[in-house]
Amino acid sequence: MMTGRITYGMVGGALSAFIGQVHRKAIALDPRAQVVAGCFTQRAEANRATGEFLGLDADRVYDDFATMAEREAARPDGIDAVCITTPNNTHYAIAKAFLEHGIHVVCEKPLCFTVAQAEELVALARAKDLVFAVTYTYAGYVMAKVMKEMIAAGKIGRIVAVNAEYAQDWLLDDLSDDPSASLDLSVWRKDPAIAGAANCVGDIGTHIEYLVHYLTGLTITRLLATTNHYGKPLDLNANMIVEYDNGANGAYWCSQIAAGNLNGLRVRIYGDQGSLEWEQHYPDYVRYTPKGAPTQTLSRGCGYITEKAGALSQLPAGHPEGLIIAFANIYSSVTTTLLKRRAGEVPDQADLDFPQVEDGASGVRFVSAVVQSAAQGSIWVATG
Amino acid sequence: MMTGRITYGMVGGALSAFIGQVHRKAIALDPRAQVVAGCFTQRAEANRATGEFLGLDADRVYDDFATMAEREAARPDGIDAVCITTPNNTHYAIAKAFLEHGIHVVCEKPLCFTVAQAEELVALARAKDLVFAVTYTYAGYVMAKVMKEMIAAGKIGRIVAVNAEYAQDWLLDDLSDDPSASLDLSVWRKDPAIAGAANCVGDIGTHIEYLVHYLTGLTITRLLATTNHYGKPLDLNANMIVEYDNGANGAYWCSQIAAGNLNGLRVRIYGDQGSLEWEQHYPDYVRYTPKGAPTQTLSRGCGYITEKAGALSQLPAGHPEGLIIAFANIYSSVTTTLLKRRAGEVPDQADLDFPQVEDGASGVRFVSAVVQSAAQGSIWVATG
Amino acid sequence: MMTGRITYGMVGGALSAFIGQVHRKAIALDPRAQVVAGCFTQRAEANRATGEFLGLDADRVYDDFATMAEREAARPDGIDAVCITTPNNTHYAIAKAFLEHGIHVVCEKPLCFTVAQAEELVALARAKDLVFAVTYTYAGYVMAKVMKEMIAAGKIGRIVAVNAEYAQDWLLDDLSDDPSASLDLSVWRKDPAIAGAANCVGDIGTHIEYLVHYLTGLTITRLLATTNHYGKPLDLNANMIVEYDNGANGAYWCSQIAAGNLNGLRVRIYGDQGSLEWEQHYPDYVRYTPKGAPTQTLSRGCGYITEKAGALSQLPAGHPEGLIIAFANIYSSVTTTLLKRRAGEVPDQADLDFPQVEDGASGVRFVSAVVQSAAQGSIWVATG
Amino acid sequence: MMTGRITYGMVGGALSAFIGQVHRKAIALDPRAQVVAGCFTQRAEANRATGEFLGLDADRVYDDFATMAEREAARPDGIDAVCITTPNNTHYAIAKAFLEHGIHVVCEKPLCFTVAQAEELVALARAKDLVFAVTYTYAGYVMAKVMKEMIAAGKIGRIVAVNAEYAQDWLLDDLSDDPSASLDLSVWRKDPAIAGAANCVGDIGTHIEYLVHYLTGLTITRLLATTNHYGKPLDLNANMIVEYDNGANGAYWCSQIAAGNLNGLRVRIYGDQGSLEWEQHYPDYVRYTPKGAPTQTLSRGCGYITEKAGALSQLPAGHPEGLIIAFANIYSSVTTTLLKRRAGEVPDQADLDFPQVEDGASGVRFVSAVVQSAAQGSIWVATG
Repeated sequence: MMTGRITYGMVGGALSAFIGQVHRKAIALDPRAQVVAGCFTQRAEANRATGEFLGLDADRVYDDFATMAEREAARPDGIDAVCITTPNNTHYAIAKAFLEHGIHVVCEKPLCFTVAQAEELVALARAKDLVFAVTYTYAGYVMAKVMKEMIAAGKIGRIVAVNAEYAQDWLLDDLSDDPSASLDLSVWRKDPAIAGAANCVGDIGTHIEYLVHYLTGLTITRLLATTNHYGKPLDLNANMIVEYDNGANGAYWCSQIAAGNLNGLRVRIYGDQGSLEWEQHYPDYVRYTPKGAPTQTLSRGCGYITEKAGALSQLPAGHPEGLIIAFANIYSSVTTTLLKRRAGEVPDQADLDFPQVEDGASGVRFVSAVVQSAAQGSIWVATG
Repeated sequence: MMTGRITYGMVGGALSAFIGQVHRKAIALDPRAQVVAGCFTQRAEANRATGEFLGLDADRVYDDFATMAEREAARPDGIDAVCITTPNNTHYAIAKAFLEHGIHVVCEKPLCFTVAQAEELVALARAKDLVFAVTYTYAGYVMAKVMKEMIAAGKIGRIVAVNAEYAQDWLLDDLSDDPSASLDLSVWRKDPAIAGAANCVGDIGTHIEYLVHYLTGLTITRLLATTNHYGKPLDLNANMIVEYDNGANGAYWCSQIAAGNLNGLRVRIYGDQGSLEWEQHYPDYVRYTPKGAPTQTLSRGCGYITEKAGALSQLPAGHPEGLIIAFANIYSSVTTTLLKRRAGEVPDQADLDFPQVEDGASGVRFVSAVVQSAAQGSIWVATG
Repeated sequence: MMTGRITYGMVGGALSAFIGQVHRKAIALDPRAQVVAGCFTQRAEANRATGEFLGLDADRVYDDFATMAEREAARPDGIDAVCITTPNNTHYAIAKAFLEHGIHVVCEKPLCFTVAQAEELVALARAKDLVFAVTYTYAGYVMAKVMKEMIAAGKIGRIVAVNAEYAQDWLLDDLSDDPSASLDLSVWRKDPAIAGAANCVGDIGTHIEYLVHYLTGLTITRLLATTNHYGKPLDLNANMIVEYDNGANGAYWCSQIAAGNLNGLRVRIYGDQGSLEWEQHYPDYVRYTPKGAPTQTLSRGCGYITEKAGALSQLPAGHPEGLIIAFANIYSSVTTTLLKRRAGEVPDQADLDFPQVEDGASGVRFVSAVVQSAAQGSIWVATG
Repeated sequence: MMTGRITYGMVGGALSAFIGQVHRKAIALDPRAQVVAGCFTQRAEANRATGEFLGLDADRVYDDFATMAEREAARPDGIDAVCITTPNNTHYAIAKAFLEHGIHVVCEKPLCFTVAQAEELVALARAKDLVFAVTYTYAGYVMAKVMKEMIAAGKIGRIVAVNAEYAQDWLLDDLSDDPSASLDLSVWRKDPAIAGAANCVGDIGTHIEYLVHYLTGLTITRLLATTNHYGKPLDLNANMIVEYDNGANGAYWCSQIAAGNLNGLRVRIYGDQGSLEWEQHYPDYVRYTPKGAPTQTLSRGCGYITEKAGALSQLPAGHPEGLIIAFANIYSSVTTTLLKRRAGEVPDQADLDFPQVEDGASGVRFVSAVVQSAAQGSIWVATG
């Protein structure tokens, strides 16, 4: 493993924020990486307290992201990369600011709001030759990587059908007929101005889109969709039928009103030689059915996992790894990539096995196409 | 329980036939019913041998169904009802013949090939005031009936999303690129002339359509679909998005090329107050999630099942009932209905809790709409 | 399949009785077998009504089993075999009476109360050369038979550990401290005078003992046990450690106070080359782990099941068979055996694949040893 | 949450060691804790490299633990606590050395080899008023803590039966008849001189003993056991029946030759008012059956988890936490306890919710009793 130290700064991630803490824990699992600066929130006191809790130098806790980008870029020991974990509507401006100062980026999804913004970020990152990771976390699970290798190796043959979904139930209360239970806009995910044109599709539907692409290599050429708003400003439930570049179809479903579903991301990939099934709730296991043979339950960490990605296991088989480790795998890839670049080495394909800015842009196009199809009576919309 | 004896005749169901034997076992579980006549196959020797194996009088084993309908109608002890378990393309003519002779009908699905035929059978059955059951078997499971009552009682509230599927893998070999592996037409299910305009949608997609309707009472107003033929004359895989009369959408998927799926009929019904999930592979159990509460696994036979249908349990909880009993429940309802009519009583709603000829007609309209939508670029097609 | 007709009579099995109905349904699934006589209960009216419901000749519905044995033996068309489904304390006398009249026997377990009685029945059956089946039902499941063949073929190697259990919860109410909730003796299973020296061990513990023996061929040489009565006359929960004739140990647990368990019979057999796991709640599936390889879920009915017993499947894979069919498999073996004997043929090993009177006797010895060990401070007791 | 910084040193845990890395990751998830010193291995070069990888000062990487204890105790900024992750036979001496220098201890299990050693460590820790945690990791899972609260609150009533097990299969190869496959003593866990008098019972059986005690508060008063060595110097499989101080029995099984089991720690606790079931492979879920009601699947993170321990969740429901977080929960409790003591506060019960040295001693007594019972023909052995 490439040794050395990479320093990260955070925009977002105050002590009370969920996803910011996850990013920090993921970074903490790798002794080669460290958070040394941040602009955690616009609430000054909480910002200061977060920095103190993390043991940061007070002068590296910034009031605004623009100042942070400028000053960190100017320091000889400035951060190598910034992690952006703020609400969706701010990703674009923050990412752009750090890129312009030559700082690598790790950004939460959705990357941004419009296809134009996305393309601008892609172009900027490539022009500046900067690393830009988008945290589609689930691709960080070891067994996701194992499935990707199995499919690439032809284990399930030509893909003929996909059925994938991401179901939650945390917005069920919004369906109440009680007017006092109307959509609580203090939750920014439900506010179109902050979350973007799509709620459910943007927040979790994009995870389906990316994960299926990551696993199979298939690209969606067109799609059609229905969305259900049930009187709310944003979609709560959506069904999509997609067509891939190999001619097969996939059915995607995302919902935030499906009682009993927590973070139910499930993918089932069917090929003419077999199938693979995986569920985020039990991420260490994959159900693999070779054509004509019994279904096998593959477990991360077992000796029969001969795919290269199996070596990323951090715990023995039967000891659950969980989401933090999936996240940490993404960060470790970024860290290794940055260390190799610093050392003048060329990162290899395994180092670069994290979601790129182009994947983030693809997600923005996907959301845009779903919104358009649903608005126009479920017509086919190209996503090219 | 209504006592007495009802006699059945069979068209189809030679010893080597799968579904015919299932019908016979279902009938055999009820001491009130008996098979006494048949036209089991057009192969004379096998026809005779089947009758003999069943201990039938030789003069009630017929060479053709028309003769059987005529003679049985003429006998003082003629059959009360006929069971039709022949290939799809013959259902219409056989059902019509027996109806015309005043004999009640139990018919396999799909009911027939065209909407016009279906409407004709509906009209004939109603004009003659005859019982006409269509064996959408899965509605015979006790827990399906329990779910139906729970939904009717408002246990999951207003339905906001449905996700249902029926996946198999027995046609995977047809995907081979090997020309010698081309579609084996000796299997009649794959021959459009015998099976109808749709294979996968007709054979198993219709089970989804009926079961969701049975459970929820929702009616599909329109649908759109993609079907995948992969070079074969009939569809092997299909995705459908449906719209119900309450405005919600459902996603249906059926496939006969999904490796690792056997008879994977699964329904998930989401309401604004909770959800229900059920899978045919484990038919005695239902997963019920009341909003905001843990998921409960309801088991057939347990004391907490207070719905009336729970009383249909034939075995204690934890002793699996299986498909034959689901089938038998449908037959027992038909038998009770016939006994009550004979006794001059009016069958109640519970007696009539079996799929009616109108349900069969609805299935034919569903298949027709799917075929049309897929052929016209996945446009919405009304099913009214 | 051997054709012909075998007639059965029943002792026990009035309309209101659970297990008697199961026997009748199991018989009904085979067109070669028929119930033609009975002494269903000592309540004369219910006895008569049961015969009528079943369509029996009134003169073949008997007031007592002794008369039934005598008269049926005297008739030219007398029953071939009797099914005994009465409370435990009556099995011995009834079985003996029919054997003495030369009538074959199918008897519920436990076979009888004492080792001496058991040995007498074994000797009598063998002396008279009569068929004597004991309905350890679970050995009738197709996948149990498949596991037996797999183990015999060495698929899991030398057996090194067994963990098996049968857990229920229907006696939980008996644990109440409320004196008014004291043991309801109207339920005969809880009355030592009727059920025998052991309740839980006798009723369900014996199923563990037989099933493990059936699957593995291993014989218990000695065992030790604890039983828990919690103030009741009979055991409600028991733990056993057994030693087999190959030197390995097994852990058995049976309970009728384990909340959430219905008829939770589970066996896990570990060999030095792999393992097998099976659960009665999902009887169509077996979990098979070859050493060093992923766990496979084997499904009844799939093409990869190459064991001979796989051919007993009555339904396609994915269509659950359930308990009635397991029971029917036992009856069909008995029926075939009787038909072959009538035809002067020698039944083969597959025909005789049903629990024999010696197996029933082995169960009586097992119960006796458990009771003795528990009474004497959990010492080892030989079961030879 | 108590803020401040606690520093840890490690004995054991070179880069190549499994469990040492787990400890380090667990520490890293809490920004309040830091590893600052170590004696990672006796291989000088690996020791140095580990320190460097972790970014430690070179003068705090020690050649031997005795020197480390002495020097760290002498430094004004010396470590607050030591983590001992070395092979079993060294725990006693190392723990004793650090205790004598007034340094708190976190030690892997088994605590030591003999009951006398264990009692000495207990006495020393108490005499010196030092914190001494033993890493029975599984008690760190949030849902284990939730179950503990549920049981304490009477949710399942009086406990009447326990069935618990820890099954693995990694020693299956040792069963080979091939003499060249004889027990590989380079694996220290298989060497009695290093691992202690029991392998399977000591390494994983003790996890059963502690977890059941932790969850239920029940203490084992006596036990009996069989162990299976299959020609090897240490036990590979063991069955135990225990008796608790409330009169109930429990069945424990541990095995390292059970094909298909990875780290299969499963506990099932049955009370007269309900039951709880939990499995380490899916640690975020608990199956809870209130008497007479459906089984509920409780998920960590859901709003209906009202037990205090639920608040320890670090991730939303449906995002798996995994073993590292369980470990981190134990370390965070230790860290909070140490911070409060430093601040002159009294740690409360929740702070002290980690396995204590007395629990470690209890484990040593358990192993000793199992070994004794098995050696003396499975007699009852008191564990008082």
